[in-house]
Amino acid sequence: MIEPQLYARISRMMLDYARSIDDDRLEEWPDFFVDQCRYLITDRQSHEAGLKHGVIYCASKGMLVDRVTSMRRVLMFEAHRYRHLVGPPRVLKIEGGVAEAHANFYCARIMHNGETSLFATGRYLDRIDVSGRSYRFIERIVVLDSQKIDTLIAMPL
Amino acid sequence: MIEPQLYARISRMMLDYARSIDDDRLEEWPDFFVDQCRYLITDRQSHEAGLKHGVIYCASKGMLVDRVTSMRRVLMFEAHRYRHLVGPPRVLKIEGGVAEAHANFYCARIMHNGETSLFATGRYLDRIDVSGRSYRFIERIVVLDSQKIDTLIAMPL
Amino acid sequence: MIEPQLYARISRMMLDYARSIDDDRLEEWPDFFVDQCRYLITDRQSHEAGLKHGVIYCASKGMLVDRVTSMRRVLMFEAHRYRHLVGPPRVLKIEGGVAEAHANFYCARIMHNGETSLFATGRYLDRIDVSGRSYRFIERIVVLDSQKIDTLIAMPL
Repeated sequence: MIEPQLYARISRMMLDYARSIDDDRLEEWPDFFVDQCRYLITDRQSHEAGLKHGVIYCASKGMLVDRVTSMRRVLMFEAHRYRHLVGPPRVLKIEGGVAEAHANFYCARIMHNGETSLFATGRYLDRIDVSGRSYRFIERIVVLDSQKIDTLIAMPL
Repeated sequence: MIEPQLYARISRMMLDYARSIDDDRLEEWPDFFVDQCRYLITDRQSHEAGLKHGVIYCASKGMLVDRVTSMRRVLMFEAHRYRHLVGPPRVLKIEGGVAEAHANFYCARIMHNGETSLFATGRYLDRIDVSGRSYRFIERIVVLDSQKIDTLIAMPL
Repeated sequence: MIEPQLYARISRMMLDYARSIDDDRLEEWPDFFVDQCRYLITDRQSHEAGLKHGVIYCASKGMLVDRVTSMRRVLMFEAHRYRHLVGPPRVLKIEGGVAEAHANFYCARIMHNGETSLFATGRYLDRIDVSGRSYRFIERIVVLDSQKIDTLIAMPL
């Protein structure tokens, strides 16, 4: 069994991550990652086929920062917000200061006119550095259930 | 870190709260609050603008009881049910017997004919009296993501 | 209060269960049950009326295995996937090695063309054997909020 405090901190970190996006504080989003990180949004079929790239692919924290900059510049014309609901994480193992964890998520999108829809569902597949004071993602793979939403993605998930 | 038992009790109280609404046991709903409570349903933009009132505003447990009475009398013509899904709470701090906690929620609405839709999404911003045997809300602010659903609200969230 | 480790194991088992379905590993699904189990998918109104049968009813692990076999043979023409989001469980009591627990769930359905919808919402009413190394369901009653989706159910929930 995972030590309860450790589980609680992993769970909390995932919630804080989602909140930074839902609150549109995207500038804080890269800080949830280590410098040498990997962030990927892909879909189930691509992931199962072993494809290493996806809709969004970042191979370092610097790329995440660039991503936010370009989002702010280009993609924010249509104001909408996300609301994540992240299920309790399944922590699979902890070894050498690295936790492997999965969690299901839903993401609702709220358009400027108030229209709300279930925008995306899927799973987080994470490797988390739990050796330091702040937990950070070494890798976060966002596996979307649907292949359909690609072109709509303007924000991280 | 929050003490695990305390976290578990806060989480449980939030689930019990949601269940009393989902089960249509509205008469039990006021008992989740202290006498001198504040309950507010508002939307994100009003909340960010610092507006103190909202779609539903109750400034005491007595007002919650009145609210239930009037709901039972007037608003129940169209039979529908809610189903909440409440994410794990983020407990921000505990001080002087008062916990400050946030949680994301989705609320699905199930119409009498069985039609199901994602009715509301948002956040609970709570201050909870954790000094006694039963935890109770001193304040529960329900911040809806959408401004659109106002007129549809017949039940607490 | 429930012992935290025990709560964590119940929560984990529910997540593993959902994942086996979401991953289309239905063959593993019966292993979440004891031999003399009861599995029932019903709707709220039937459940409240005390009806003992439902959309799907299995009175032993063998019947669950048969169910999977027939699903694989007949019902898989229209390829779709589920994505569960299971809320934190409410563990009501533990007595004689048996836990009684409830949890809310949403289930999204992702069609082959990528279309995603909130397919089902409801509650799990569980009795769980927690006496052994692996926790298993003695009884899992799936109470759907809507009566409308019956004919669409091709997979367990």
